Amino acid sequence: MIRLAPSILSADFARLGEEVRAIENAGADLVHFDVMDNHYVPNLTIGPLVCEAIRPHVQIPIDVHLMVEPVDALIPLFAQAGANLISFHPEASRHVDRTLQLIRDHGCKAGLALNPATPLEWLDHVIDRLDLVLLMSVNPGFGGQAFIPSTLPKLQAVRTRIDAHMAAGGQPIWLEVDGGVKLNNIAQIVAAGADTLVAGSAVFGAPDPDGGYREVMQQLRTNAESR
Amino acid sequence: MIRLAPSILSADFARLGEEVRAIENAGADLVHFDVMDNHYVPNLTIGPLVCEAIRPHVQIPIDVHLMVEPVDALIPLFAQAGANLISFHPEASRHVDRTLQLIRDHGCKAGLALNPATPLEWLDHVIDRLDLVLLMSVNPGFGGQAFIPSTLPKLQAVRTRIDAHMAAGGQPIWLEVDGGVKLNNIAQIVAAGADTLVAGSAVFGAPDPDGGYREVMQQLRTNAESR
Amino acid sequence: MIRLAPSILSADFARLGEEVRAIENAGADLVHFDVMDNHYVPNLTIGPLVCEAIRPHVQIPIDVHLMVEPVDALIPLFAQAGANLISFHPEASRHVDRTLQLIRDHGCKAGLALNPATPLEWLDHVIDRLDLVLLMSVNPGFGGQAFIPSTLPKLQAVRTRIDAHMAAGGQPIWLEVDGGVKLNNIAQIVAAGADTLVAGSAVFGAPDPDGGYREVMQQLRTNAESR
Amino acid sequence: MIRLAPSILSADFARLGEEVRAIENAGADLVHFDVMDNHYVPNLTIGPLVCEAIRPHVQIPIDVHLMVEPVDALIPLFAQAGANLISFHPEASRHVDRTLQLIRDHGCKAGLALNPATPLEWLDHVIDRLDLVLLMSVNPGFGGQAFIPSTLPKLQAVRTRIDAHMAAGGQPIWLEVDGGVKLNNIAQIVAAGADTLVAGSAVFGAPDPDGGYREVMQQLRTNAESR
Amino acid sequence: MIRLAPSILSADFARLGEEVRAIENAGADLVHFDVMDNHYVPNLTIGPLVCEAIRPHVQIPIDVHLMVEPVDALIPLFAQAGANLISFHPEASRHVDRTLQLIRDHGCKAGLALNPATPLEWLDHVIDRLDLVLLMSVNPGFGGQAFIPSTLPKLQAVRTRIDAHMAAGGQPIWLEVDGGVKLNNIAQIVAAGADTLVAGSAVFGAPDPDGGYREVMQQLRTNAESR
Amino acid sequence: MIRLAPSILSADFARLGEEVRAIENAGADLVHFDVMDNHYVPNLTIGPLVCEAIRPHVQIPIDVHLMVEPVDALIPLFAQAGANLISFHPEASRHVDRTLQLIRDHGCKAGLALNPATPLEWLDHVIDRLDLVLLMSVNPGFGGQAFIPSTLPKLQAVRTRIDAHMAAGGQPIWLEVDGGVKLNNIAQIVAAGADTLVAGSAVFGAPDPDGGYREVMQQLRTNAESR
Repeated sequence: MIRLAPSILSADFARLGEEVRAIENAGADLVHFDVMDNHYVPNLTIGPLVCEAIRPHVQIPIDVHLMVEPVDALIPLFAQAGANLISFHPEASRHVDRTLQLIRDHGCKAGLALNPATPLEWLDHVIDRLDLVLLMSVNPGFGGQAFIPSTLPKLQAVRTRIDAHMAAGGQPIWLEVDGGVKLNNIAQIVAAGADTLVAGSAVFGAPDPDGGYREVMQQLRTNAESR
Repeated sequence: MIRLAPSILSADFARLGEEVRAIENAGADLVHFDVMDNHYVPNLTIGPLVCEAIRPHVQIPIDVHLMVEPVDALIPLFAQAGANLISFHPEASRHVDRTLQLIRDHGCKAGLALNPATPLEWLDHVIDRLDLVLLMSVNPGFGGQAFIPSTLPKLQAVRTRIDAHMAAGGQPIWLEVDGGVKLNNIAQIVAAGADTLVAGSAVFGAPDPDGGYREVMQQLRTNAESR
Repeated sequence: MIRLAPSILSADFARLGEEVRAIENAGADLVHFDVMDNHYVPNLTIGPLVCEAIRPHVQIPIDVHLMVEPVDALIPLFAQAGANLISFHPEASRHVDRTLQLIRDHGCKAGLALNPATPLEWLDHVIDRLDLVLLMSVNPGFGGQAFIPSTLPKLQAVRTRIDAHMAAGGQPIWLEVDGGVKLNNIAQIVAAGADTLVAGSAVFGAPDPDGGYREVMQQLRTNAESR
Repeated sequence: MIRLAPSILSADFARLGEEVRAIENAGADLVHFDVMDNHYVPNLTIGPLVCEAIRPHVQIPIDVHLMVEPVDALIPLFAQAGANLISFHPEASRHVDRTLQLIRDHGCKAGLALNPATPLEWLDHVIDRLDLVLLMSVNPGFGGQAFIPSTLPKLQAVRTRIDAHMAAGGQPIWLEVDGGVKLNNIAQIVAAGADTLVAGSAVFGAPDPDGGYREVMQQLRTNAESR
Repeated sequence: MIRLAPSILSADFARLGEEVRAIENAGADLVHFDVMDNHYVPNLTIGPLVCEAIRPHVQIPIDVHLMVEPVDALIPLFAQAGANLISFHPEASRHVDRTLQLIRDHGCKAGLALNPATPLEWLDHVIDRLDLVLLMSVNPGFGGQAFIPSTLPKLQAVRTRIDAHMAAGGQPIWLEVDGGVKLNNIAQIVAAGADTLVAGSAVFGAPDPDGGYREVMQQLRTNAESR
Repeated sequence: MIRLAPSILSADFARLGEEVRAIENAGADLVHFDVMDNHYVPNLTIGPLVCEAIRPHVQIPIDVHLMVEPVDALIPLFAQAGANLISFHPEASRHVDRTLQLIRDHGCKAGLALNPATPLEWLDHVIDRLDLVLLMSVNPGFGGQAFIPSTLPKLQAVRTRIDAHMAAGGQPIWLEVDGGVKLNNIAQIVAAGADTLVAGSAVFGAPDPDGGYREVMQQLRTNAESR
């Protein structure tokens, strides 16, 4: 069973409350919330005030992906704004172990987000602190990119690490993929080991706000399980 | 006659389209759009995608205040997203004259925003390039501040400069104030020389979305002209 | 009457408690505490823990000069460590008015420190927030420099501003000078308007820890008043 | 009598030795050497090794304009490479007085370069340390710009300061202009007070390497004195 | 046989000379000297002048841990101030191999300090340059942390690398641990491979300056060898 | 068969066109072009304008090594200036996969340059994007260094990766070495797996501009193949 996390980056920002209610009603498992600061990535999107505004509209967890540098000062702000999971990029924090603890100390689940080229060695010494590994399958902050194929062996390598960790009694860790997830590749991505999938335009690009979202998400799930 | 520019920072971010339509219907002259990047100021708000989303909902100009550093890369993004005025802080650009030109080259009106302590000498050599001077009457990016009284003589000094410039045949320049503008101080602020007033909680804090906004804006205008 | 503020940068760091007791006993008015971070200036000196350690050894105020960038995060740390005055350089804070307020909110007196080349226009809009203006008469963080003569007319200009401010009912503001103050130039410096004088090697270079400090400080006072 | 300083930014970088010999033979007073670091300005040009390579080819002074940030580390490198004058932008150094001293300590003449929008107050406290004021009449590092008209009153204001300084017995200070200087505006620029003129494409764009350079420089001088 | 390196961060900064004499008398092998710059870590502690001041008070080596960024400029300052070992964090230097050489060129032993999450791959290509590997068992610069358990397998992995290197004829490399080392975990830490142990509050928190320090250090050694 | 890439950093910058023609005539396979920005390394060399100037003088590819940070903005400038290969350091880009794509999108071959201490894990997920791996055998930007011996096993490890990649049908990847390559070590370096060799002073230090260059390059090839 997979989790679907539509990214509100593809939603209508003029009526976000309505949009997140629509995806919850249509069966989304998480709201994926993309934060860009025009420093870690070359764009600026939305911050804690927007998270706080949509919080009352849904019950499902808000999954905040921080594409920002530095990281630590925003964590309490997002925790207070109702975030449930917070992920960040290890290159963007000098004290990765500390930032993971800080997220958990604020009552959120903690994740590491890895760019397409970022080595997996960042997981070596913090696997006990992680609730989520987020593999980027496009480069964050740049538009118009397709799913990068080398993400598939990278997913398999992370899946092997997580399974070994859990087999040894470790806590559960989700494995999320973000970037270019579509109806025609979700089966491969899930087969490679992902259990949580960010979908942006695939969901919000569907024709009709409500029925369309439900239909495309059901189709994503069907395809995901068709392997 | 003054211009009122309600700041959407105090609006409901879950239904921004509706909010900006409501302030336009209630008589607002401009939508004031506050951009923070967690570097120039210690918070992160909203970026070009949000500007683009609200653009079709109103006819009035969108007045973008960039509390970001560096500045230049965001200017084309905001111009394409429908901004009409763009202001920035001179300390945040190494090439202030160039940034002003860049804004105008993208078809927008250009403004300099000055923090409470920032000297007016930044205006000395670029007054020909300006459509707007924005004086901050609180420190941008920090919450819970009251109107800083030393803004009043600073407003008078800028008003004198602008009047002299226009008397010598120069282009018109608006004089905008942002921070702590309320029913009980707007008369003083306008008397000191401001012609464009940002109001945040004063407007969006009004009880009823539509009637309340109109009522408070009319009251602001009445008070402004009661000097 | 002048105030003398020996800089502990010239003290023996192996026995700072003893050293600050000695200067207090010898008649010092303030302990001047020089903080360098290897970013704003090319050296690194001492931080809040050292301030906290010497606090119980003296009754006189500790006058912290922050040669650091950025500034704000260190202010609560120094306030908790027992600082009484905190000065910073305006180029090192994007929000100078805010930083001044922050210092006062933590119960300390607030000062602006100006490098030899820094224009006085930084005082234009914050004079109401100041308890101290610190003019650097050498470039901070570099060794082996003599008193820069152009500090004298700069002192006179600040003295004129402060006197006008106080004549109009404003709060008192101290005018401090730091760098190359010696027995043979203190009269000129005081004549130009300074009322608070940092002396480093002039004091701590005196031969005998206790008697020597007292003697040189008395001589400094005598010379200062000999104009 | 004016000084002409052709900028080698417009020369043929494949044969710089020959180019600088040509302009010296054609009557140039200085070689203007533009250093960009892709940080202070959005381009990267040439550094100390190139300066060292052209040094043996000419007798006239090399006038280095540092469009870099930070500044200090490059000064000894350029002094060793044979620079005679070194100018920098005050916003690019935290210790402007110190950087000016450093240039002189290395045996070069020292200048401050001011961007079109930069206030003249940077000259207030360092006029004793200056051999050169360089006013930018375009924004450095950006191509295709015309001479900015507000440079003319700015030149007059600096001329007034320099004349007063020299009348009071101060050292001579050159007043240089860089950007968009052409045959058709040089008279105005000199009339406004400039005595040293950077010319880039005006000189190196002349058809024939040797004769052409001489002819255009003579024409520039003729026009300059035709006021 | 282990080496004990009490961290003067827990000493009385008002009488550091006396404190370091006391720990030397009580049997310490090294003085551990923690340098923070408020950039690499969120605090500022002590710099080269303090190192120089304590140098004459002890014979044992001073083991400087640079929690600073950038690194290189401080190395000659600390070498001149009497440091014997200098460690830095590889993320804080763009040229790690060069920085290691620089430390050795100044006559000091060179170490790499690794944060809890930092991968061991930083050791792959520089093991020939190392005299010391310092594993952080808490996050540097943040207070109130306990020993992080995942340091134990990381210690074992480094021990394996060092033993293989020395078995192949390589130079000796010390393996130091810093953070939360106490009487009740030192046996485990030494069993995992550490041979040099930083102890802060464990030592300086002991009741009586002299006798207390000796007693706790003897107890640490006894426990360390009790495995 | 090896490729020789003389570095123009050792050429005469006063007549670069002539120098690059001379090395092409003498049999060079590539022009190696070293770009330093005084930020990633402590020196500033040459930029796109110089590349553009030498482009018409040779037919062989220009191999640009970017020792700069950040990287992306310079890539289109160098592509337009005629570069054929562009390499950069992964620590200097937050989005390594994206930067590699950007280079290829501009029609150039793309390379990763690794400092002596940089781990090979940076190659793990981008090997499909690479045309070149450049191993630094000295620290870039610092003078007077000898070939670092630990480069030899590092070369072997990269050679193994590349061979495995190509055996599995992957695209060809060149393996280049830069730093201290001389007549007396080139055989070892080639034996360890390098196929492309940067030679600076070894080539341009040869006595006679033309005949000398040819002779030394032939000798380098002979020695390289003498293993």
